[in-house]
Amino acid sequence: MERSATGPAAAPSGNRKVFRTELTPIDFLRRSAFIYPDKTAVVHGDRRYSYVELEKRVRRLAAGLKSAGLKSGDRVAFLAPNIPALLEAHYAVPAADGVLVAINTRLSAKEIAYIVKHCGARQLFVDRALGPLLEATNLSHISVTWIDDSGSVDDPYEAFLSAAPEDPLMTGPRDEEDPISMNYTSGTTGRPKGVVYTHRGAYLNALSEVLEMEMTARSVYLWTLPMFHCNGWCFTWAVTAVAGTHVCLREVDAGHIWQLIETEGVTHYNGAPTVQIMLVNHPQANRLDRTVTTMIAGAPPSPTLLEQLQTLNIKPIHTYGLTETYGPTSSCAWHEDWDGCTPEEQARILARQGQSYVTADLMRVVNEAGEDVPRDAETMGEVVMRGNIVMAGYFEQPDATAEAFRDGWFHSGDLGVWHPDGYVELRDRAKDIIISGGENISTIEVEQAVSRHPAVLECAVVAVPDDEWGERPKAFVTLKEGVEVSEREIIDFCREEIAHFKCPDAIKFGELPKTSTGKVQKFVLREQEWSHHEKRIN
Amino acid sequence: MERSATGPAAAPSGNRKVFRTELTPIDFLRRSAFIYPDKTAVVHGDRRYSYVELEKRVRRLAAGLKSAGLKSGDRVAFLAPNIPALLEAHYAVPAADGVLVAINTRLSAKEIAYIVKHCGARQLFVDRALGPLLEATNLSHISVTWIDDSGSVDDPYEAFLSAAPEDPLMTGPRDEEDPISMNYTSGTTGRPKGVVYTHRGAYLNALSEVLEMEMTARSVYLWTLPMFHCNGWCFTWAVTAVAGTHVCLREVDAGHIWQLIETEGVTHYNGAPTVQIMLVNHPQANRLDRTVTTMIAGAPPSPTLLEQLQTLNIKPIHTYGLTETYGPTSSCAWHEDWDGCTPEEQARILARQGQSYVTADLMRVVNEAGEDVPRDAETMGEVVMRGNIVMAGYFEQPDATAEAFRDGWFHSGDLGVWHPDGYVELRDRAKDIIISGGENISTIEVEQAVSRHPAVLECAVVAVPDDEWGERPKAFVTLKEGVEVSEREIIDFCREEIAHFKCPDAIKFGELPKTSTGKVQKFVLREQEWSHHEKRIN
Repeated sequence: MERSATGPAAAPSGNRKVFRTELTPIDFLRRSAFIYPDKTAVVHGDRRYSYVELEKRVRRLAAGLKSAGLKSGDRVAFLAPNIPALLEAHYAVPAADGVLVAINTRLSAKEIAYIVKHCGARQLFVDRALGPLLEATNLSHISVTWIDDSGSVDDPYEAFLSAAPEDPLMTGPRDEEDPISMNYTSGTTGRPKGVVYTHRGAYLNALSEVLEMEMTARSVYLWTLPMFHCNGWCFTWAVTAVAGTHVCLREVDAGHIWQLIETEGVTHYNGAPTVQIMLVNHPQANRLDRTVTTMIAGAPPSPTLLEQLQTLNIKPIHTYGLTETYGPTSSCAWHEDWDGCTPEEQARILARQGQSYVTADLMRVVNEAGEDVPRDAETMGEVVMRGNIVMAGYFEQPDATAEAFRDGWFHSGDLGVWHPDGYVELRDRAKDIIISGGENISTIEVEQAVSRHPAVLECAVVAVPDDEWGERPKAFVTLKEGVEVSEREIIDFCREEIAHFKCPDAIKFGELPKTSTGKVQKFVLREQEWSHHEKRIN
Repeated sequence: MERSATGPAAAPSGNRKVFRTELTPIDFLRRSAFIYPDKTAVVHGDRRYSYVELEKRVRRLAAGLKSAGLKSGDRVAFLAPNIPALLEAHYAVPAADGVLVAINTRLSAKEIAYIVKHCGARQLFVDRALGPLLEATNLSHISVTWIDDSGSVDDPYEAFLSAAPEDPLMTGPRDEEDPISMNYTSGTTGRPKGVVYTHRGAYLNALSEVLEMEMTARSVYLWTLPMFHCNGWCFTWAVTAVAGTHVCLREVDAGHIWQLIETEGVTHYNGAPTVQIMLVNHPQANRLDRTVTTMIAGAPPSPTLLEQLQTLNIKPIHTYGLTETYGPTSSCAWHEDWDGCTPEEQARILARQGQSYVTADLMRVVNEAGEDVPRDAETMGEVVMRGNIVMAGYFEQPDATAEAFRDGWFHSGDLGVWHPDGYVELRDRAKDIIISGGENISTIEVEQAVSRHPAVLECAVVAVPDDEWGERPKAFVTLKEGVEVSEREIIDFCREEIAHFKCPDAIKFGELPKTSTGKVQKFVLREQEWSHHEKRIN
């Protein structure tokens, strides 16, 4: 049996309190590698890493980062799918006292370049298949390490590990409120903002995820959800906390997922409704002989989807959160007296966003004065959160942080009602954000891209409901006088500017509705598109 | 549906961070009462309290304590069995910013008087049936509230609640490292020491207990373990964290327990081996049609006991800890590759104390210089702990605290070996402590009691193995010249001095073995008594 070379922390120096250890998810790995050294930590195709092997790789990566000049608080960027290297980074970067920036691989080259520059990373790790995304980028100031994701000695990432010593894991951050990661989110201003997570928040959210999903050392977690979304909703850390098994996945392919559920004995996976819909409707979908638990967030699941999942013996847990809350922060906790409801009623109940996790403060719904709205399931207000699983702030954007944190609560920009039973249900969005397949899209960002086309005079983008993706952007465009351009031309133009998933699927040409003072009335456009829907989000 | 009147904390004033809430188990109750108001929180005979009712009672108790003059940091003492009032105190006392002292009801009147005086409580709540324990005590300085445990209006405790307003729950401690409770433990110096717990430690240990026991909102926990032992190993808080049901129990009666397991649908309970042995050997013991999980600590379970439990469909989880570690802090986590072992091997593996909970730092076994002993399963050393679930210190005993915390680690006084797999196994005890039925007994305290008998010249007390209680005290006594006294007379004398369970079962008269300098060689006496045992603890 191979032994962990890290194990218990050495006796601390100085006057640190015996009864206090700074909370950090790094300790989840330290412990699991010590207690379960031979247990399978990571599965990736034919590759298997035990917990002690994972820990060794993490220690080498951390040591390599430090050898390459990483200083305390420096950012390290990763651009990769759900592969072992990115999971390792979730421990190695903080263990080297750095801050992990896992970049959304669905963004455009320009967007990625913006994030890499904004976060100030001087080290970037890139999966080889994503190389084209860097071509448009000037990376002269940054050190790039390629990941072939082969696991073999000629993989540059593996060479990086081999060249580094196996230093012991650090004993933890100096302060549990130090940053552990930054996750960029589409802001309403059009430019992504860097949401700062702390060691403490990551630790406490991870424990709540374990409790919500009832994970144990017997759990096998399939990585259908991108690790670049809120650090995989903190499951990068949660699965390790219980010494479960991470099953990696380069891309979401429903047939492959059904196969892995079978061959790897998967017990848990997560995904937005779009992924879930793809799964349940796949020809390989079949009723499982054991219950698999799935967390659904990003948009409320439909009654049809809930029923389909349950028929397949997949237990859905509907949760809600934002990048600013470490991913999911609330869940629609089930009450036994709902067991007697009809399937339709149950689906309606379960589609609510519910109330906060045990490590979060209870959510509120407030009016513009910051006061609670009545719990009448009718009065709309903004959902606000506070407590240990709210971000520390937006990186180098004190004004945006202060605005989001006004009145001492984080303002989600999500509009909803408060039910008599204290549960929250979303109805609309104050922010100009579209959520499509679990990905945030800023309408302003899309408008700016469309408007850059020389034929466009002005433009407004709104979300429209979509069966597959939940919501999709639709552009309303007024052309300059005497100019002609097709819908296809504008869409293709956008695809050069911003991520493909952000580009409108449809363009409608014509005048835009305006107020007497000339302001575009986006709500008029939205109302037209959503007139047959009860809510204004999907 | 009755609604919680507390709910989310009000918007905090001043410059408190939006992303930080001080960790406190009070928030477990706030959340469960808000999300599950109608769920059964407490069962006590025919009495049932929903979560919102429990919260209301707690708010009244907290308000009543403050009306009666409780100041921040004041201690409030409770002397009661596992009844609703004592559970309520676990939330109300900290919610009033006080410190709970739940006193062991098995102690003698003199010992209880010492604790009440030492902790400085000015308010004491006493279960009526335990009144005689106070008779010997001068309580002129303290306000006593009697608990009839009837739940009816003429119960003085209920009158105390009724007289108080339903103030909202406090928003939490100013600092999560503030004390939440003190638990008195038999020290080696003979006088009980007040072990100080913090809000943060209680919160984090409670979450680990939930994870170890895999508790959920469907859990029904039976209170076989005294709440006065480490606040019920923090299950007073852990069960509420998942909105499980607390089933109270005035006394441990095996027949009654089997009945409650059936009628209340109990899923979890805890107990030292003594309680477990009583349960499995009771005529009503029967194989359950669902798995019930039990935590065993206080002494390692025997192979026989483990097999008996499993036969009854009771899943044992062996944990280890001390009052100084909030109760259990380590568990013998199971490895799948042990499934193939023989039942004897499995029992031997499971009887080890294992390694730390996820919210604790890993344990070490050290030599006298504070260095790790080899992981060879042979070299003895002292088990040391540190981190978030180690006590803050001994109340008003800075020297004893400094001694326990030397080298930056808490010294357990437990001697053991370190296995190659990193698991710890206890073998002996450095402290003069006997553990009998899960209760600590200081040998020095017993020696002092025996020595107070006028006929006794000198005395040494050691633990002897006992099938029912694990260990029992045995006294070796040299009488004064020319005096005669019977074994019975000395035992009866002791029972006037100290708790009955601490009194020796057997007295052996004669010379004591001594060193050349005249020091009593207790190890010689112990070796005689344990010569047929592999370990020196049981």
